[in-house]
Amino acid sequence: MTLKALVQKTARQAKAASRILAKSSTQLKNKALENMARSLRKKANIIIRENKKDLLAAKKANLSKAMIDRLSLNKKRIEEMAASIDAVIKLKDPCGAIDKMWKRPNRLVIGKMRVPIGLIGIIYESRPNVTSDCATLCIKSGNAVILKGGKESINSNLAIYKILRAALKESGLPEDCISMVESVDRKVVAYLLEMDDCLDLIIPRGGEALIRMIADKSKIPVIKHYKGVCHVYVDKEADLKKALNISINAKVQRPGVCNAMETLLVHKDIAGDFLPKAIDALVAEGVEIRGCTRTRELSKNIKKATESDWYEEFLDLILAVKVVRNTEEAINHIAKYGSGHSDSIVTENYDTSLKFLKEVDSACVYANASTRFTDGYQFGFGAEIGISTDKIHARGPMALEELTIYKYIIFGSGQIRK
Amino acid sequence: MTLKALVQKTARQAKAASRILAKSSTQLKNKALENMARSLRKKANIIIRENKKDLLAAKKANLSKAMIDRLSLNKKRIEEMAASIDAVIKLKDPCGAIDKMWKRPNRLVIGKMRVPIGLIGIIYESRPNVTSDCATLCIKSGNAVILKGGKESINSNLAIYKILRAALKESGLPEDCISMVESVDRKVVAYLLEMDDCLDLIIPRGGEALIRMIADKSKIPVIKHYKGVCHVYVDKEADLKKALNISINAKVQRPGVCNAMETLLVHKDIAGDFLPKAIDALVAEGVEIRGCTRTRELSKNIKKATESDWYEEFLDLILAVKVVRNTEEAINHIAKYGSGHSDSIVTENYDTSLKFLKEVDSACVYANASTRFTDGYQFGFGAEIGISTDKIHARGPMALEELTIYKYIIFGSGQIRK
Repeated sequence: MTLKALVQKTARQAKAASRILAKSSTQLKNKALENMARSLRKKANIIIRENKKDLLAAKKANLSKAMIDRLSLNKKRIEEMAASIDAVIKLKDPCGAIDKMWKRPNRLVIGKMRVPIGLIGIIYESRPNVTSDCATLCIKSGNAVILKGGKESINSNLAIYKILRAALKESGLPEDCISMVESVDRKVVAYLLEMDDCLDLIIPRGGEALIRMIADKSKIPVIKHYKGVCHVYVDKEADLKKALNISINAKVQRPGVCNAMETLLVHKDIAGDFLPKAIDALVAEGVEIRGCTRTRELSKNIKKATESDWYEEFLDLILAVKVVRNTEEAINHIAKYGSGHSDSIVTENYDTSLKFLKEVDSACVYANASTRFTDGYQFGFGAEIGISTDKIHARGPMALEELTIYKYIIFGSGQIRK
Repeated sequence: MTLKALVQKTARQAKAASRILAKSSTQLKNKALENMARSLRKKANIIIRENKKDLLAAKKANLSKAMIDRLSLNKKRIEEMAASIDAVIKLKDPCGAIDKMWKRPNRLVIGKMRVPIGLIGIIYESRPNVTSDCATLCIKSGNAVILKGGKESINSNLAIYKILRAALKESGLPEDCISMVESVDRKVVAYLLEMDDCLDLIIPRGGEALIRMIADKSKIPVIKHYKGVCHVYVDKEADLKKALNISINAKVQRPGVCNAMETLLVHKDIAGDFLPKAIDALVAEGVEIRGCTRTRELSKNIKKATESDWYEEFLDLILAVKVVRNTEEAINHIAKYGSGHSDSIVTENYDTSLKFLKEVDSACVYANASTRFTDGYQFGFGAEIGISTDKIHARGPMALEELTIYKYIIFGSGQIRK
């Protein structure tokens, strides 16, 4: 069989399985998830054995230490994977809920019912835990899934995948609800992206280049997140203590993630009071500052920010800092350079806070809180499959409900259209 | 300026305008819509004059009578365009509504706020009324729009577009909220589909070939509707009078539209009772029947349905008819051959109706009613910009709310992440 034929066969089988899963009860889905968690715990040694093959290859290929760390599995990490399945079992099944229902003058009753999307393709880089985490969320929300992970983690992914499939089968769900094309050939992705008669949605997880390639090539709808260029704007009426805490937290608590602050905007009227202290505190935390002209007047030994710095997702202990004339300029800066992810204003002024919340067009807009809260768990969703910076279907943290869509069910009594 | 540069400039200006529109009040948007309706009525003569140029060209180019009819504008049709603006003014503005709001243990208050999508591209064929109808719905829902109509209606579209822009400007909204690239070059579409830094959504309206081309090439999310292969399934426990009425209505009331029935499925146990009568009635209405083997045994002089007929959107007085063994087979037939648009079961059995409503994965699933009700007006939305057969963002009739998305607004009091 050619690789293309294999991809097509896998997609068709997964699509057929998705129809059975979509009509399965919450009980059956939870039973399958219990089996999945139990099997991962029971067969942790197999996963670790297969993971060693990936680690050996990674060392031979001279992959970075960070990359090897992300790739590594051990008893503790496998227990975490299983524990996150336990947690998802406890979450509410979004499927079957009727969001609203109304009656028309002709007595048709129309209901808007939440249903699974169908078959979802997840394309990700080399974190083997994604295999289990994504499969779990898809199964709970009634969606079949085709997983395509990075080639560096192929042995770990295959091991996890086979364990999960066997657990599904044992519970009475079709094993094809969790599918994977067993090949590291990069063409698999291109073939998958053509299967718009089977796949209903693609969720890419990885770097911007991978995601752009997928969005460009896919015939299937994609929900994505290119980058998180998040801002904190310290208004002239900010509580400077809150402003300092939030700025430091948003930058240094975990700089390598998408909801960390990349640019600090400061109102000119308080820049003299706030910035030197804030910059000292940030530098003490190891942050490299790249400032605008005014910032560099207020604080010495600051690198000049270039135009491209304002667009940059540093994902590191680097921060661009700009003094702005007013809230309007802050909002315009965010519209031009931001990525529509998470932005926060610090102000005690009621009107200014509402103006910012209204006019900043990002997935998550904060007043007086750190951007680091953009996260499915922090929002109370109990899970997260990704964060969307798109403008349709879902924005911000995506969990179970965001993996569903609605259909209309219409109850008639013989109505015909006049 | 090159054509590509013109498209880019148009998109950037429209994007900038979209930000102003997004924060405009319902009052201002309604005032702009009032101006738009008044100007269309006042300047109907200009539109008719420009429309004559298109009609002349269409006759020269030997376009079909149906096509020329769709292209033609007169006082009455322009009044209809204006009246539909009047109707949209009365509809509720979806923007700014808080769908839900909750408090986290750390006292963060998270609200889910409905907001415009941003800048929407509408690509359509040669119906000049679409220019006004789509612009109206976009303005009301707070979205700027770039319109790209068929070349056959270019003069009519430009006339309408200029009148609408002038009306916007008069009301104090940026005229670029309604934009159009003033060129008939087909490359405009290709250039637009690359502008994913400006456009947030593409809605194509037209034939399947156009829509497939757009879905394949677009870097921008597309919400689409390929075709409507709608089914009526007459169960063994159907009220045969309802079944007959619904079948005739779904097929003949307006056969050229996407929510008309294309295939009739009949349970074998009542096929003998129902089908000969139903077929006689349908044939009397001028319908050509293409039947399965059993259908052709029950009714004489019936053409044989080919495999491809089951997939076909006839959009005409042609109907494929199949006798099935049970509800399961009907559901499977719809899953295989249907287009996820609208499907109806006729049955008096409670469990069977619920099984069908649950298991048929279409945008609109009916029990005991005609598929012809799939329509924004019939659903009570007061408008319709299209019907989606996609599985994300919106399914079925799309109106104002479906042209919006949400963002999270988060009210803090200095919270940082631990």
